[in-house]
Amino acid sequence: MAQEPSPPLHPEVAPLAGLLGTWRGEGAGEYPTIAAFRYGEEVRFWHVGKPFLAYAQRTWSLEDERPLHSETGYWRAKPGGTVEVVLAHPTGIVEVQEGRQHGGRIDLRSTTTAMTATAKTVTALRRRFDLDGDRLTYALAMAAVGQPLQHHLAAELHRTG
Amino acid sequence: MAQEPSPPLHPEVAPLAGLLGTWRGEGAGEYPTIAAFRYGEEVRFWHVGKPFLAYAQRTWSLEDERPLHSETGYWRAKPGGTVEVVLAHPTGIVEVQEGRQHGGRIDLRSTTTAMTATAKTVTALRRRFDLDGDRLTYALAMAAVGQPLQHHLAAELHRTG
Repeated sequence: MAQEPSPPLHPEVAPLAGLLGTWRGEGAGEYPTIAAFRYGEEVRFWHVGKPFLAYAQRTWSLEDERPLHSETGYWRAKPGGTVEVVLAHPTGIVEVQEGRQHGGRIDLRSTTTAMTATAKTVTALRRRFDLDGDRLTYALAMAAVGQPLQHHLAAELHRTG
Repeated sequence: MAQEPSPPLHPEVAPLAGLLGTWRGEGAGEYPTIAAFRYGEEVRFWHVGKPFLAYAQRTWSLEDERPLHSETGYWRAKPGGTVEVVLAHPTGIVEVQEGRQHGGRIDLRSTTTAMTATAKTVTALRRRFDLDGDRLTYALAMAAVGQPLQHHLAAELHRTG
């Protein structure tokens, strides 16, 4: 879908325009139930002229480049700095995130997490993004598999296109 | 992400292998709250060697090719013919679909629909896919905006790659 020629950006998503493009970098993950790990990451934001940004993300092992996580969905901006994000994960999870944008910071928290019968249980996710020009960092906190909400992921990405 | 070289298909998603590729065709939509319409559609299924298929779909106006709907997510196959699908829509909606595969037919119904504060309310979705070689048809029924579950979309697609 990124191959489509880009029409003008829809004015409703102008507050999110700084996210558009392809971002690459590295991150670190930790959680009580797993060994700490580092990962490579690519994030893409694009648009088709409608009032949303499309979003796709994938991560890989820094050791052998095997694919790790991915997620895909859409970002919306609404009046008053509100940001809404809907995501699907290949682990059988969907999330609805809502929050606010203040300058380069976007703070989101899940209003819904839901999953298929065979998926691990994720009960809450918080995502904080900090955009500074061509540098995008994020931190993600997660409550899952019986563990309380706590830090899980942090990464620093740089715009590559 | 479709640009990545394809590793071997994960055996868990072998029952869904017939979906892999790019599909194009046309469909028709109707609902009590809108005028009936026809649309062009492209669907892509791909994989990265992990136990899921990635899925992205977009539709456009047959009159002026402007983008209409899109959705993105992941398909999983589980023992006993179970199929699980997680999707995000740019209208601020996520859905978890579960169902079964019998030969070329996949019947799915939503176990969760959820949405952002500003989205229209969708309370149930049923999706039926029929795969016959390089021909894929689907029908979608929807309960939304106060209307009961009823036929909304049908399309016929052909594999183009």
